[in-house]
Amino acid sequence: MRTFVECIPCFFKQALEMGKLFTGNELIHKEIMDEVARLIPKFSLGLTPPEMAREMHQLFRKRFGEQDFYKGIKDQSNRRAMKLYPKLKEKVAQSNDRLLTAVEIAIAGNIIDYAAKSTLNIEEEIEKLFQDDFTPGKKGIFEYEDFRKDLGTAKTVLYLADNAGEIVFDRVLIEELCDNWKIIFVVRDKPTINDALMEDAILCGINEVAQVISSGVDAPGTILKYCSSEFLKDFKEADLIISKGQGNYEALSDCSREVYFLLKVKCPVIARHSGSMVGDIFLKKIRN
Amino acid sequence: MRTFVECIPCFFKQALEMGKLFTGNELIHKEIMDEVARLIPKFSLGLTPPEMAREMHQLFRKRFGEQDFYKGIKDQSNRRAMKLYPKLKEKVAQSNDRLLTAVEIAIAGNIIDYAAKSTLNIEEEIEKLFQDDFTPGKKGIFEYEDFRKDLGTAKTVLYLADNAGEIVFDRVLIEELCDNWKIIFVVRDKPTINDALMEDAILCGINEVAQVISSGVDAPGTILKYCSSEFLKDFKEADLIISKGQGNYEALSDCSREVYFLLKVKCPVIARHSGSMVGDIFLKKIRN
Repeated sequence: MRTFVECIPCFFKQALEMGKLFTGNELIHKEIMDEVARLIPKFSLGLTPPEMAREMHQLFRKRFGEQDFYKGIKDQSNRRAMKLYPKLKEKVAQSNDRLLTAVEIAIAGNIIDYAAKSTLNIEEEIEKLFQDDFTPGKKGIFEYEDFRKDLGTAKTVLYLADNAGEIVFDRVLIEELCDNWKIIFVVRDKPTINDALMEDAILCGINEVAQVISSGVDAPGTILKYCSSEFLKDFKEADLIISKGQGNYEALSDCSREVYFLLKVKCPVIARHSGSMVGDIFLKKIRN
Repeated sequence: MRTFVECIPCFFKQALEMGKLFTGNELIHKEIMDEVARLIPKFSLGLTPPEMAREMHQLFRKRFGEQDFYKGIKDQSNRRAMKLYPKLKEKVAQSNDRLLTAVEIAIAGNIIDYAAKSTLNIEEEIEKLFQDDFTPGKKGIFEYEDFRKDLGTAKTVLYLADNAGEIVFDRVLIEELCDNWKIIFVVRDKPTINDALMEDAILCGINEVAQVISSGVDAPGTILKYCSSEFLKDFKEADLIISKGQGNYEALSDCSREVYFLLKVKCPVIARHSGSMVGDIFLKKIRN
């Protein structure tokens, strides 16, 4: 998905949110905003939003060094999600359609996104999601039957992770698949907001149920032109790709191969682009 | 109130909203965003937000000429508010404390602000406001008793208008005052978002109950350094000043004379600055 003008105010919001984690000094926040402002005229709407985020991250790295200022938030997300893990497994165990419930759980996990929403009570939101979204007549686009069918003919599944904490929910889905499919779980290469890294995947035990690799990208989205050749080989060869979250949707919705996108729609731009409403769940294969 | 870094994303939002009224062409929207971005590094946080808005308006004027693209919105707001006028007068007539009810109505009118909120059902919101905010134990800072006392010793009242439509609600308050006080009603000098101009004041009949003047300012706030000398004389000499809305609060909260601010708090920055919560009503005299 290319960048829309409506994304521009959001770039500044994200930069400010990051800046506040780096320092409490408002003068430095202003300098950060000034630097982001200088990027805007050079940035083409033909690029994807994660490409702008990547430039902003480089700007932060240049200024503050290689630090992971979201580490505390990510650790907390992982811990809180791990606490919910037994309950999630129970939901699957009690389900008539284990795969369906596991897919729903994976989407539910996508609300753990501090980039899109700063404060939230995960437990409450998850419970609300299960009550509202996953009842018959659920909101949004949810092409589960196609997904199940495509999975039936696949052997390898490439699973593109989104946020820390959320990956515990992904693990529940992966555990339903890993006995019959080869799962490659893909994390970001370098700290980028609250996105999951290798250390998060290990902390949440994903490495016990899947092969975990890095995409090679230091942006909050799988921008193919910056991915490692190792990743690109897997990306090309995988029978089925599951892409989690808005950042990966933005980076890959126009790519040349089929991808299943699983996410919770959090912004009006993605809602419009995907034919959804803000707040909707989204499971759909896009082929360009 | 000076500008806070949190205002910067909002500048872009406002510029985009304005840009969309000027043209549907996204490439021009991007060019507008680029031009606003170029202003940011030059803009000091020591200035007030309406000063930035003024610069953005000048940019629009340079690009699109002297056009009033909010005219349609303002006309509609005026018309819709005029329809409510008999109902508002009835509320006052039935009240045990006519002045209190008229003050509440004037604050209620401040929700008519397309700059802060794009779409809203005025009638519904007003009704909700009367039910929620103006009941005993109402939310926010509401120093009505001080206001009433200060009014008792005043002879001339300078009333700084905010938005079109809203001024019909101001008229209800002014009609409670105009028999005993000299009221000078102040509008913006040039089109600036949906702010009230002389033509709006005349359309809504304010000129029948008050002297209507322009502040001389072409910004969505009464920025004293750009005001006309005629206005500044009235500003200095008035016994009591009523300032409506966020824009005037931003422009005048640090000024050297006493001002009563009447508004509905719509953004977190003003909430923090005024010791309120978003959604609160606010009636308070500030003296620096």
